[in-house]
Amino acid sequence: MTSPRIARHDTRKIVQGVTHAEAPDELAVEEPLEIRIDDESIAVTMRTPGDDFELAAGFLRTEGIFTEPSQIGAMRFCGEETNPAYRNIINVTPSPDMRLDLGRLKRNFYATSSCGVCGKAAIENIRTEAKPIVGKFRVKLDVFYRLGTAMRSAQTVFEKTGGLHAAGLFDLHGALIELREDIGRHNATDKVIGRMFLDGKLPLDKHLLMVSGRASFEIMQKALMAGIPIVCAVSAPSSLAVEFARESGMTLVGFLRADQFNVYSGAERIEV
Amino acid sequence: MTSPRIARHDTRKIVQGVTHAEAPDELAVEEPLEIRIDDESIAVTMRTPGDDFELAAGFLRTEGIFTEPSQIGAMRFCGEETNPAYRNIINVTPSPDMRLDLGRLKRNFYATSSCGVCGKAAIENIRTEAKPIVGKFRVKLDVFYRLGTAMRSAQTVFEKTGGLHAAGLFDLHGALIELREDIGRHNATDKVIGRMFLDGKLPLDKHLLMVSGRASFEIMQKALMAGIPIVCAVSAPSSLAVEFARESGMTLVGFLRADQFNVYSGAERIEV
Repeated sequence: MTSPRIARHDTRKIVQGVTHAEAPDELAVEEPLEIRIDDESIAVTMRTPGDDFELAAGFLRTEGIFTEPSQIGAMRFCGEETNPAYRNIINVTPSPDMRLDLGRLKRNFYATSSCGVCGKAAIENIRTEAKPIVGKFRVKLDVFYRLGTAMRSAQTVFEKTGGLHAAGLFDLHGALIELREDIGRHNATDKVIGRMFLDGKLPLDKHLLMVSGRASFEIMQKALMAGIPIVCAVSAPSSLAVEFARESGMTLVGFLRADQFNVYSGAERIEV
Repeated sequence: MTSPRIARHDTRKIVQGVTHAEAPDELAVEEPLEIRIDDESIAVTMRTPGDDFELAAGFLRTEGIFTEPSQIGAMRFCGEETNPAYRNIINVTPSPDMRLDLGRLKRNFYATSSCGVCGKAAIENIRTEAKPIVGKFRVKLDVFYRLGTAMRSAQTVFEKTGGLHAAGLFDLHGALIELREDIGRHNATDKVIGRMFLDGKLPLDKHLLMVSGRASFEIMQKALMAGIPIVCAVSAPSSLAVEFARESGMTLVGFLRADQFNVYSGAERIEV
């Protein structure tokens, strides 16, 4: 009954200008897990399925909500366990003698990565707000090859501390428009998009976004909301990032190196 | 008035068994930013200071709360701008003609990284719940050198996808007790701690936690809540992780390699 932790997606590898045949690539699965106490939502986290009861128990312990395992009366997935969508919600019932002040917990914060019922539902919700991208232009191959160098040479803090992520916005010729660094990849992305938003320049439908590290669902969602058609990542995308890119008409490039990269979605925008 | 993005902390480098003199190391600053609309908390994110108005604007746009820059009437830091603590809260006033349904926004989620007013306040809050660690045992140097290899050989998914983080719990002799992988480092940590919590094995005061990638405030907070005295990371810690470790009596090791590492806090637990 455990959801898989690895998903296979057909991927096109482009090495030194040569496009290889599509082959399945193994990606880490990313799906939301909603944790409820007595049917009330406490948190949603984007996680890789597996060990979900441990994740819920660990979260409730490290956030100081439970202190003893005996305080957990029961933990179960919501609804029918045969429906995969319901394996993304865990309901925790405290033991009868435990007094829990749920009001104190609900600090009325809107959680960034929060979503509806399951990965699919979240995707549907967002698609109603942001239309899929339809732009049919093409970007030259060497533009992609140059992105990494352009971004690293513009990064000021990373070289010193090794601890910052970066997000760079490029035009379709590979010229860097904005770059921001932050300890959180999603924050760096929000800073870049925020600058353009404040300048009245959205939608960014003639731009590429490049992020250090991995491409998660959250990054793809933010890019789509800003109308960015092409997202490139230094390392691997998650399964949900790929599925979201395909459903949203976005181009998603991963493992971007100086002379090779993988295309997970929207290869028609790349001029080989 | 901008808060610094880099902080210097005295660090002890241990290379092939030789302890070097303490020298300042540059770390990326991590601090919370609380985003409010009309004085109501909407989100808290752990971020690197700088471009904070852009971060707030980008967040509000990519979450679909604002769609036009003209809807933002004003953005300002709360309280006295001369007090650094107040530079961690931004209040956004919508333009008078904008109708915003704040009730719809507040989906009553408890945000994982949420905290009080500023980094210091968050630290104080947590210290009231989790006592500083006082254990005075020592761990042999070669135990640290072996952690990375032990963790990588136990990781099953990472090698295939390159997209998963890992958290490993070790005993003081370097034996691996539990290892979990997840697309989120904090989830992998919660899964490990959750397993031990469910087994009634907390506090983990005779254990080391090792995480892939960086050590953030959130990881240190979770480790402290579980009573773990020593945290090791493959790459850099954030400034707040170091400050939190020092105030909590924890040992924090970063850039852990096969024959060298940096000690940011609690060097007295390492037997050189």
